[in-house]
Amino acid sequence: MTPSCASKNADLPYDRVWNFSAGPSVLPQSVLEEVQRDLLNYKGHGMSVLEMSHRSKVYGSIISDAEATLRRVLKVPDNYSILFLQGGGTGEFAAAYLNLMASKSVREKQQKLGRPLACDYIVTGGWSKSGLKEVERLGANVNVVLDGVKSATTGETVYNSLPPVSEWNLGKPEETAYVYYCENETVHGVETPANFVVDAVDPSVPVICDMSSNMLSRPVDVSRFGAIVAGAQKNMGPAGVSIAIVRKDLLDRDESDPEVTRNIPSVLDWCYFDGAASMPNTPPTFSIYVCGLVFKWVEGQGIETMEKIRNERAKMVYDVIDAHPEFFHGLVDKKYRSAMNLVFTLPNAELESKFIAEAADCNMIQLKGHRSLGGIRVSLYNAMPIEGANAFVAFMKQFYENNH
Amino acid sequence: MTPSCASKNADLPYDRVWNFSAGPSVLPQSVLEEVQRDLLNYKGHGMSVLEMSHRSKVYGSIISDAEATLRRVLKVPDNYSILFLQGGGTGEFAAAYLNLMASKSVREKQQKLGRPLACDYIVTGGWSKSGLKEVERLGANVNVVLDGVKSATTGETVYNSLPPVSEWNLGKPEETAYVYYCENETVHGVETPANFVVDAVDPSVPVICDMSSNMLSRPVDVSRFGAIVAGAQKNMGPAGVSIAIVRKDLLDRDESDPEVTRNIPSVLDWCYFDGAASMPNTPPTFSIYVCGLVFKWVEGQGIETMEKIRNERAKMVYDVIDAHPEFFHGLVDKKYRSAMNLVFTLPNAELESKFIAEAADCNMIQLKGHRSLGGIRVSLYNAMPIEGANAFVAFMKQFYENNH
Repeated sequence: MTPSCASKNADLPYDRVWNFSAGPSVLPQSVLEEVQRDLLNYKGHGMSVLEMSHRSKVYGSIISDAEATLRRVLKVPDNYSILFLQGGGTGEFAAAYLNLMASKSVREKQQKLGRPLACDYIVTGGWSKSGLKEVERLGANVNVVLDGVKSATTGETVYNSLPPVSEWNLGKPEETAYVYYCENETVHGVETPANFVVDAVDPSVPVICDMSSNMLSRPVDVSRFGAIVAGAQKNMGPAGVSIAIVRKDLLDRDESDPEVTRNIPSVLDWCYFDGAASMPNTPPTFSIYVCGLVFKWVEGQGIETMEKIRNERAKMVYDVIDAHPEFFHGLVDKKYRSAMNLVFTLPNAELESKFIAEAADCNMIQLKGHRSLGGIRVSLYNAMPIEGANAFVAFMKQFYENNH
Repeated sequence: MTPSCASKNADLPYDRVWNFSAGPSVLPQSVLEEVQRDLLNYKGHGMSVLEMSHRSKVYGSIISDAEATLRRVLKVPDNYSILFLQGGGTGEFAAAYLNLMASKSVREKQQKLGRPLACDYIVTGGWSKSGLKEVERLGANVNVVLDGVKSATTGETVYNSLPPVSEWNLGKPEETAYVYYCENETVHGVETPANFVVDAVDPSVPVICDMSSNMLSRPVDVSRFGAIVAGAQKNMGPAGVSIAIVRKDLLDRDESDPEVTRNIPSVLDWCYFDGAASMPNTPPTFSIYVCGLVFKWVEGQGIETMEKIRNERAKMVYDVIDAHPEFFHGLVDKKYRSAMNLVFTLPNAELESKFIAEAADCNMIQLKGHRSLGGIRVSLYNAMPIEGANAFVAFMKQFYENNH
């Protein structure tokens, strides 16, 4: 039998593997090489970025360059702040809620209403579900706009599609603090199309979007969001830093009233970070530095190119799935399937184990589906070269030939 | 005139500087070299630690080895958990308060008392002051045990010593949730002697200690603390990870009562991290990896050696200060001066600027005192070789000769 890969991947950069991890995940080779080169002596300053005081001029340039580059790449309008934070996506679940509820405009609306405003949650998979649970725990008055879809066969809730907007249970604008959703569900492989949610929501209600796993993979009209939050470790850089892009009017609040801020620990307080250019305390200096290099790498290609490559990579894999639907079973409704995390099953668990093992033999790793879903998940983030997708597709085809 | 350094520091490792930053700060040369070597391909796994899934076996070993090494180095007893967290010291200000107040034993004590327990704060400088302010903001019932000392000349509060224990305003054990202090004040250069606080506090009251800036610089009897918390970026590793060593009985709480946990965002929830071996969500993977290498480096020498070197380095500098008190004015009471952050002034601001500029010419950097204090601050953390302290002392002496 022909092995599923002809060689150990001639396209692979020397001794590396194709890393299809859902995150932390592959970084651009050129970025890693620059990090390595400068590791003991950053641009002649005689020290590593790992050792650098965040109050030094050199580091000041590193973080402000990173911010400026991200602002250019995503065309972030001037009335939005870009914050570098800690605590990952999970930190931002809480931060988004705590900061929005402290916002002057939200508090005024609540006062007018005379009872707690609702926090509208759109649940399309594991991560938005976790976001919902976090704010429930913190005492939010939650309104579930939608929670996946009912399986036609079992009647159970599944996360493989979205119901039509006409069926969404959006609250009345005057009763709603904000609408929250996660644009790409890393576990379930469901990606909401660009502008799909902001088009459905009354423009007076701030939309908070978790873009952790599709950030920088396509252009985004930032002006339509109240805030965009994202952990860096999928498309932007290493773990340990998260980013919030926040409309500045939402940071306006009455600091003189201790009740306003009494539930917000400083590390989750967007205003605290906004007032000190993301450095009220020591930021995750090295992670931000690497993110800055990734932002420059994206800028060098342009965000439109990132989108083109993103769609090309995903199409190659989905084409194989669609060509052999009796063997590769895509788990998500075609309209909403993710270009970042592609999930599918094989005819049985044995074949899935074999697929994963043979892929590993071909230097393709981290293909096991999330424990809650099983099957195969291949993550094709920004830094995955088209050659990686090529190699994977060639492997899929050969595996099909050998095993169908 | 003889320049203040004879050469550009023959002892300096090739093109590096002597980095006396208060944090982030110098890391061991050998650790940086290992990080650099493995940056694109960690031990043959074909990827950088920066890209590694935290759920992979390889990373699982990295984090569990780091924990195990720290446990050995500090002889952490089995009834203590070691947690890797995000949010720095500032995050732990809030986390310590929120988690302690949710602890079963603390809540039972409060119920017995019939009114809010006090949180006892020992304020010896800028960092414990910030810790106090954070919990005040979060609504704590604070009892200030001491707040620096009164200046004999101006009557103002200054942070250069501690009042005698007989003057401390410790609450009654049955009315106190916990006692909090910061063992080494990075800004003010005040270091509380080992066991000084735990000796003064009733053993039934948990003592929470912030050891961010003297961690791993001397042995510590962990068993005497309720919890030890520390940001990594001074003595342990890069910024972006903090550590909590928590007595397990304090993690016992009634999870069925939503009121208990309703103010604790997940990222600050010690139980959430304890229940998932520090990985309920993506941890700051790379920072933890580097910390693990530093822990091994400390273990290779032994914590007793770290203490010997720490004391030796500091003594060299303080000896010069004490030999010329009319020129080098140490700011802290000798009994409490820090071996980590040594603060002093020169006869005037002009000489201080000259000192800093000439030191920079000799490749010695980050010597400017904190903006709240002025003068000179030289930080001599674990990774500062004795040669660095030698070079600094030689510079001090020559500067004195040239300028007194």
